[in-house]
Amino acid sequence: MENEVVDIENLTEKLLGLISNKDVKGIRQIFEVIPTIDIADACNQFEDISKLVFIFKTVKSEYTADLFTELDPDVKQELINMMSDAELAEILDSQFNDDLADDIEEMPANLVSRVLRNVPKERRAVINKLLNYQENTAGSIMTTEFLTLLDSLTADEAIARIRSIGKEKETIFTLFIIDKNRNLVGTVDLDDLIFAKGEEKLSKIMNRDFVTVNVNTDQEEVANMVKRYDLNAIAVVNNDERLVGLVTIDDIVDVIEQEANEDVAALSHVAPLEDSYLDTSVAKMAKKCIPWIIVLLVLGTFTTMVLDKIEKSNVFSLVPVLICFVPTLMDTGGNSGGQTIALMIRGLGTKEFTPKDFWKVIRKEATSALIISSIISVFAFVWFMIEQYTGIVTNEKLLVDGQFPTIWNGLCWSSQFFTTSIGVSLAVSVTLLIAAFMAKIIAVLLPLGVAALKKDPAVIAQPLLTTIIDVVSLLSYLGIATVFASAFNLA
Amino acid sequence: MENEVVDIENLTEKLLGLISNKDVKGIRQIFEVIPTIDIADACNQFEDISKLVFIFKTVKSEYTADLFTELDPDVKQELINMMSDAELAEILDSQFNDDLADDIEEMPANLVSRVLRNVPKERRAVINKLLNYQENTAGSIMTTEFLTLLDSLTADEAIARIRSIGKEKETIFTLFIIDKNRNLVGTVDLDDLIFAKGEEKLSKIMNRDFVTVNVNTDQEEVANMVKRYDLNAIAVVNNDERLVGLVTIDDIVDVIEQEANEDVAALSHVAPLEDSYLDTSVAKMAKKCIPWIIVLLVLGTFTTMVLDKIEKSNVFSLVPVLICFVPTLMDTGGNSGGQTIALMIRGLGTKEFTPKDFWKVIRKEATSALIISSIISVFAFVWFMIEQYTGIVTNEKLLVDGQFPTIWNGLCWSSQFFTTSIGVSLAVSVTLLIAAFMAKIIAVLLPLGVAALKKDPAVIAQPLLTTIIDVVSLLSYLGIATVFASAFNLA
Repeated sequence: MENEVVDIENLTEKLLGLISNKDVKGIRQIFEVIPTIDIADACNQFEDISKLVFIFKTVKSEYTADLFTELDPDVKQELINMMSDAELAEILDSQFNDDLADDIEEMPANLVSRVLRNVPKERRAVINKLLNYQENTAGSIMTTEFLTLLDSLTADEAIARIRSIGKEKETIFTLFIIDKNRNLVGTVDLDDLIFAKGEEKLSKIMNRDFVTVNVNTDQEEVANMVKRYDLNAIAVVNNDERLVGLVTIDDIVDVIEQEANEDVAALSHVAPLEDSYLDTSVAKMAKKCIPWIIVLLVLGTFTTMVLDKIEKSNVFSLVPVLICFVPTLMDTGGNSGGQTIALMIRGLGTKEFTPKDFWKVIRKEATSALIISSIISVFAFVWFMIEQYTGIVTNEKLLVDGQFPTIWNGLCWSSQFFTTSIGVSLAVSVTLLIAAFMAKIIAVLLPLGVAALKKDPAVIAQPLLTTIIDVVSLLSYLGIATVFASAFNLA
Repeated sequence: MENEVVDIENLTEKLLGLISNKDVKGIRQIFEVIPTIDIADACNQFEDISKLVFIFKTVKSEYTADLFTELDPDVKQELINMMSDAELAEILDSQFNDDLADDIEEMPANLVSRVLRNVPKERRAVINKLLNYQENTAGSIMTTEFLTLLDSLTADEAIARIRSIGKEKETIFTLFIIDKNRNLVGTVDLDDLIFAKGEEKLSKIMNRDFVTVNVNTDQEEVANMVKRYDLNAIAVVNNDERLVGLVTIDDIVDVIEQEANEDVAALSHVAPLEDSYLDTSVAKMAKKCIPWIIVLLVLGTFTTMVLDKIEKSNVFSLVPVLICFVPTLMDTGGNSGGQTIALMIRGLGTKEFTPKDFWKVIRKEATSALIISSIISVFAFVWFMIEQYTGIVTNEKLLVDGQFPTIWNGLCWSSQFFTTSIGVSLAVSVTLLIAAFMAKIIAVLLPLGVAALKKDPAVIAQPLLTTIIDVVSLLSYLGIATVFASAFNLA
């Protein structure tokens, strides 16, 4: 598809050339044939924003309205500084309230007041209200420019009314139907309206089985509703059940992506970036990355404490080869738990299941954890035998003529070497069985518990997981190795 | 929002009750007020599928068409077995080609042939074609039921034409405009058609700046186009640039979620599940989880080999306390690289950047990696001093009167203890600086390299990362500890 995507660098140079030549016709032509988002990307590359003003003065306002929406925040702000109040008012007039509220959130205070001074009073009230909704709620992502139609209208009357006022609304693909008390009583999809007979009443055509969300509903929940019911737009109501806005499916696409990024970020111990990777400054990146690493470093102290105990224990001093398997045990436990917690966090996030399904999930995971860790453990036992027989790990207590016995030098066929190898392999693979199993169980309990407390499992459960698994694995290892050491006379 | 979501268990019982009482009116009423997806979920719980047949016989076909689409595959198959050919043909007639193709992919062979026998010949050809597109391409997710309009029609003529045939098409929110040679020349959004003057020609109204994708374009790329250009539907063309289908935004929502799940799965070393977590059998779960754990276990052998070297080295035998910091080093390196690879994989997946931005990304990451790892390393140095002074880790070579010196027993104020602690802390924190920095650099190079080779970075880069980081960290540790041991007289 590379060939069909516009080359932004090329476009930037072309636009700059047309602006220098004051080629108004050329600029207008570009807006006819190239998607506005691509032009906006090109304009974002301008070093001299005053050149952009020329575009805004020459191109039709229907294009500049979209262009302005798509500009980068810093470009937008510089541009506003160069505009007269009249020009600013005209541009602002063309913006949707929710987009404008998003812009304002990122502006310095002096610009905010200039922008708000240049929008009509009633609109200012709406924007202020949007700004007050908590982040990540339906209220914060909804649009307030929606169209309501009375249920007593006929299809033809409804179409006439849409034609007279609809163009300013964000979507008319889903229409919200109210009764004479202004209560929401149904929805009509635009296509159903088109297919209806002209004289049919909206109250006959409309879907009565519509769903709504509250302004305070979490955006992830809103996304799940829109997906589940396959909607173009969902009605947002306030606590009095009055219609106050709507969320359209293109906003939902952004929510789904944002939530996925948050899940990936949390599972990878980094705070989610607000901007794209390339737009995030080094200082911000440090702020996103450092905190969790330091928290995990401090939590890791528990692991260090256990390893301090292990390193001074009788069995590990006498059979130092056992130390070599510590990374394998920690990594396998971590990987095993990591798989399960990832499935849990995505499953909870996309509402495949909820904390109410606790027992179902636990039963399922316990069974599969047992099977998975048993199979891995059997494989590991064989692999650890191979590691010892090929001399990948070596037991210095078993030197024969100053050499480590391996299959390569043929010194490995003594019964003492066999017994010790079996003992070591068994100790490590039994620990691994317990570690991998426990890891999966902890990886189910932690996120479900955190979700039941209405907290975000991705953020809280994941960091604790590694530490708990490391400590559990190493303590099991200490105990099991001690038992096997005496059973197999390892020392 | 819990109160507005339908209680499925309740609904199942209610439906079963109505069916036993043969209460046709009651059943029909439920379909009027409850979303079909919720009814389908309730029907999926039926133990006796023959009860479902009663619903299909009593309810209007516009409802049963949707209901059938939403049923679980196994329920669908059982239901088909209970239907006569005539009933089956009627239901199939109401299904969209792309949904039907998806169903067929999961059916046993005998059912497939019965289904295909009951659809008209031309339709069978279309479905067979859909089945042949490669998974995860535009062709595999597109619908073939779309509406094209000639560019010479007027707005009124277009609306009349839509009214006459549109109802069977999957979407009419975006209309595709062709010239008399059947070449795609533009698109019109339904709302623009409604707002247009009746006598205006489509060639005047239509957007000429539309984008298309090829049938073989990867679905992730299709999703990125739909998002970028804020589309309701995108045209899919074949290699001859002829329009063959379209992908709608609700399919894109599923793609975005699926791709996010794949990224999370790959980063967590588990193969992506095809079904929801609760619907995946234990055997399938084992198949998804075990392979990567075993691959990682085998790759971990390199780590074991290095640790075997370390454990037998002079410096670690003389200063065994250094062993206690191995997990911290491995975990911190892993966490540091994990952050970066997650940002890379999501960034590449959502096209925030491409392998072409190689130098931009590298420069950015090198700077922030240096700053981040320096800050962490300074913090770690202080923390390791605290660990030694409080006796969290203890150096058995420094026993005073049989006790480990700590601030608690006041034995820590000797210059020898101070020098040794500084030496150990420095060795570990300098290694940590190198490990965290290298981890981030490797975590950039690997996925970018894999993506440049047109392979999926999530699947290939991530497993290699941990092993490489572990080996690099441990080898650095061995070298650095040896230098510091002689510089600070640690032994």
